[in-house]
Amino acid sequence: MMEQNEFRIEGRNAVIEAFRSGKPIDKIFMLDGCQDGPIMTIKREAKKHNVLIKYVTRDRLDQLSETGKHQGVIAYGAAYEYAEVEDILAKAREKGEDPFIFILDNIEDPHNLGAIIRTANLAGAHGVIIPKNRAVGLTATVAKASAGALAYTPVAKVTNLAQTIEELKKEGIWFVCADMGGETMYKLNLTGPIGLVIGNEGSGVGRLVKDKCDFVASIPMKGDIDSLNASVAAGVLAFEIVRQRNA
Amino acid sequence: MMEQNEFRIEGRNAVIEAFRSGKPIDKIFMLDGCQDGPIMTIKREAKKHNVLIKYVTRDRLDQLSETGKHQGVIAYGAAYEYAEVEDILAKAREKGEDPFIFILDNIEDPHNLGAIIRTANLAGAHGVIIPKNRAVGLTATVAKASAGALAYTPVAKVTNLAQTIEELKKEGIWFVCADMGGETMYKLNLTGPIGLVIGNEGSGVGRLVKDKCDFVASIPMKGDIDSLNASVAAGVLAFEIVRQRNA
Repeated sequence: MMEQNEFRIEGRNAVIEAFRSGKPIDKIFMLDGCQDGPIMTIKREAKKHNVLIKYVTRDRLDQLSETGKHQGVIAYGAAYEYAEVEDILAKAREKGEDPFIFILDNIEDPHNLGAIIRTANLAGAHGVIIPKNRAVGLTATVAKASAGALAYTPVAKVTNLAQTIEELKKEGIWFVCADMGGETMYKLNLTGPIGLVIGNEGSGVGRLVKDKCDFVASIPMKGDIDSLNASVAAGVLAFEIVRQRNA
Repeated sequence: MMEQNEFRIEGRNAVIEAFRSGKPIDKIFMLDGCQDGPIMTIKREAKKHNVLIKYVTRDRLDQLSETGKHQGVIAYGAAYEYAEVEDILAKAREKGEDPFIFILDNIEDPHNLGAIIRTANLAGAHGVIIPKNRAVGLTATVAKASAGALAYTPVAKVTNLAQTIEELKKEGIWFVCADMGGETMYKLNLTGPIGLVIGNEGSGVGRLVKDKCDFVASIPMKGDIDSLNASVAAGVLAFEIVRQRNA
């Protein structure tokens, strides 16, 4: 029943708590016919998060239960573990490649975060670093939008991005952030150990983080509006790095 | 009250019809307290399309009404007009540039369509062509995801993409489609009059359309999963075209 990398949560309060803390729940098995308060809360949360509820018999739940205390509800989800920054560096070493890391300064839209992790995987990046506060974390929506990449590409969560950048610089990594007014990306040397910094959807890269970057790269824009979607911008910059690395 | 580029639809059946035909409705003013069938249908459609309903008095509706026959409901939306393929070619001529057109073979996700129109605008493309059937059209969600680009970049809707490509070839335009197994995009000559063909999120570019293309271009992938998000892939290819055009 249980696939690898899957977690199981049993009991009403545990499942409600899981929803509240943003755990990536994929499906719920529920005793058919329940109508009480906590069950209605779970149904509401499930609907809000687009989670499938499968109504089953008590026998079936007993069979699925590990604790024997399911209280009529068992939730399953994919266990996306956060990595450490060191894991990302180790991955680059393992492959014998210069580190290539995505740093996301406060991406808020889970579809964007998922699409960027997907891009990071396909561009051959060794991992993604996100901040602990405000930004979206690894929810089920992010996992879905990543199209499976979350199972391969390590994502680390850090308290202070500027400080993490400072520490990674000691490892010989250069940092380039995407922003308007920077040098056109084609003119920069983006080879070697590199961290690509992508900013928030609305406000771009924060000042403290930007100050730590070695280069500011811009995508040449011809149009009438301001900026690309954050995940598109990340893709365009990432593949310019790929192009220069392979040239 | 009425902003520029806004349309107003008055009356129950007209509003229901507008929802059914996929018109991009942004908000609805409704007489408070109505409960009849057509009103319930409008409420359901509004909920389905995430449209805000504002409940107002009869006096307020009379004031907003232009026809005097609002029947308790007035809808507002942004007027996104489809362009003709000829408008796109005319735009290129006006600017004295080689045509650069996006052809979207059945994009289904409105966020992707919006993000791609946004990318087309910023990459300096002259327009976007979408098919009449199955694919998503210009809804309010698309407009929002385009971040304003829909007001500048013409979008034409055609019955048969393969036939449109055939006709545009007579104008001297070359077509490149994005697909795995194609030549790496860096090795192709993507300058000159060009149509960039992007396929469906799940199934890629259709066979009939692919057969009409002059080149198949692929993005060099290093990762563990299959493919980039459709709007990211469109962005990466579009800016490779930009790079070659500016080189």
